[in-house]
Amino acid sequence: MTTTPAPATASNVLPPAVVLLSGGLDSATVLAIARERKFACHALSFRYGQRHAVELAAAARVASALGAVQHRVAEVDLGWIGGSALTADIAVPKDRDLATMTADIPVTYVPARNTLFLSYALAWAEVLGARAIFIGVNVYDYSGYPDCRPEFLAAFEHLARLATRAGVEGAALTIHAPLLKLTKAEIVREGVRLGVDYGLTHSCYDPIGDAACGRCDSCLLRKKGFAEAGVPDPTRYG
Amino acid sequence: MTTTPAPATASNVLPPAVVLLSGGLDSATVLAIARERKFACHALSFRYGQRHAVELAAAARVASALGAVQHRVAEVDLGWIGGSALTADIAVPKDRDLATMTADIPVTYVPARNTLFLSYALAWAEVLGARAIFIGVNVYDYSGYPDCRPEFLAAFEHLARLATRAGVEGAALTIHAPLLKLTKAEIVREGVRLGVDYGLTHSCYDPIGDAACGRCDSCLLRKKGFAEAGVPDPTRYG
Repeated sequence: MTTTPAPATASNVLPPAVVLLSGGLDSATVLAIARERKFACHALSFRYGQRHAVELAAAARVASALGAVQHRVAEVDLGWIGGSALTADIAVPKDRDLATMTADIPVTYVPARNTLFLSYALAWAEVLGARAIFIGVNVYDYSGYPDCRPEFLAAFEHLARLATRAGVEGAALTIHAPLLKLTKAEIVREGVRLGVDYGLTHSCYDPIGDAACGRCDSCLLRKKGFAEAGVPDPTRYG
Repeated sequence: MTTTPAPATASNVLPPAVVLLSGGLDSATVLAIARERKFACHALSFRYGQRHAVELAAAARVASALGAVQHRVAEVDLGWIGGSALTADIAVPKDRDLATMTADIPVTYVPARNTLFLSYALAWAEVLGARAIFIGVNVYDYSGYPDCRPEFLAAFEHLARLATRAGVEGAALTIHAPLLKLTKAEIVREGVRLGVDYGLTHSCYDPIGDAACGRCDSCLLRKKGFAEAGVPDPTRYG
């Protein structure tokens, strides 16, 4: 685990929120939204054996640029579970047709990943006294991932109320998913409005050094988002 | 992560189940029950920064003695979250009154621990194609832990059906908690019936070397269970 210590600033008097921060376009936008909603943002990233660990450097840059109170990177041992192109020796698909990409669950799906990540966020929220968790899931771009659906988030919120000391004592926890029903272009426009520097973010599943491959599902969706938003794409493609 | 490879035996044709195995009295009994119910048992333990890591050696002994198909120990980074006497620098309570012990949430409660452990089990179950997860939670002995209640387990089962590829495809997952409404004495009797060697297990929160302290909540409940069951207590107390 790595961490940036919390500075003693006025932001410490705002209500705390845990913000899941991958370092990609979506979660950077979510962090900006959480800040606009006047939360003291405790950013949480995971090193889970992903091929694209370069995103963790992006997460640190984004957390700093967007004024997170602190940023933690939890080590999560998912490699032994296998079953995903993001953590096991399965090829990342390239150049897929965007129209059919979301029809079924892709091989980049990591089993129970959002359940695990939200569980860590829940544990941290309980210790911080936070009653809000922000997550950048989205039903349109990732509709093939079962754990990105609104009914999954509602089920986790219900679980959280039963699972924790705070919940038992009547303090409900809310899962905020502000991107849930936005297209990628709408997300980009929202981020631009909030001053997010997307040049700091990293979305590629299969980077070439620090550069994006430009051909995986994530790169293709990102490119399309900038194009449709009419915003110049700051991504460096390899 | 450590693992014992799966042997090629007849047990591989039984339906697989993930069995959460701490190495304590309860989870050893659960493993014996899962085996009796004709599951091929994939035992899962966690190294999560607990003071009582000696229980992992007990888990390995138990998995072997009770015929688990394989045993994995996942590394789970909980120490940075803090908030519990089991993982942080908070004293483990000793010599508490058993009658009042369960009235509120004890400091040995680890925030969201069962949520996290079940999430790992869910991820593994998905990759194994298992539709059953066994967990040794109990409403009586641990009624102060919010994540040991039946409504929590029901909420997790609901979440699991929404969170996974198998759930999306209609294959429901069941959380089995066969000890849920048994007293510690009833658990001991059930284990004895199934041939569990409780001398292999470890329950103490604050062991002295390999020996149990005899005074933490877990030791006190265990002692009482053996006494009420009329079964000799094989535990070595320090």
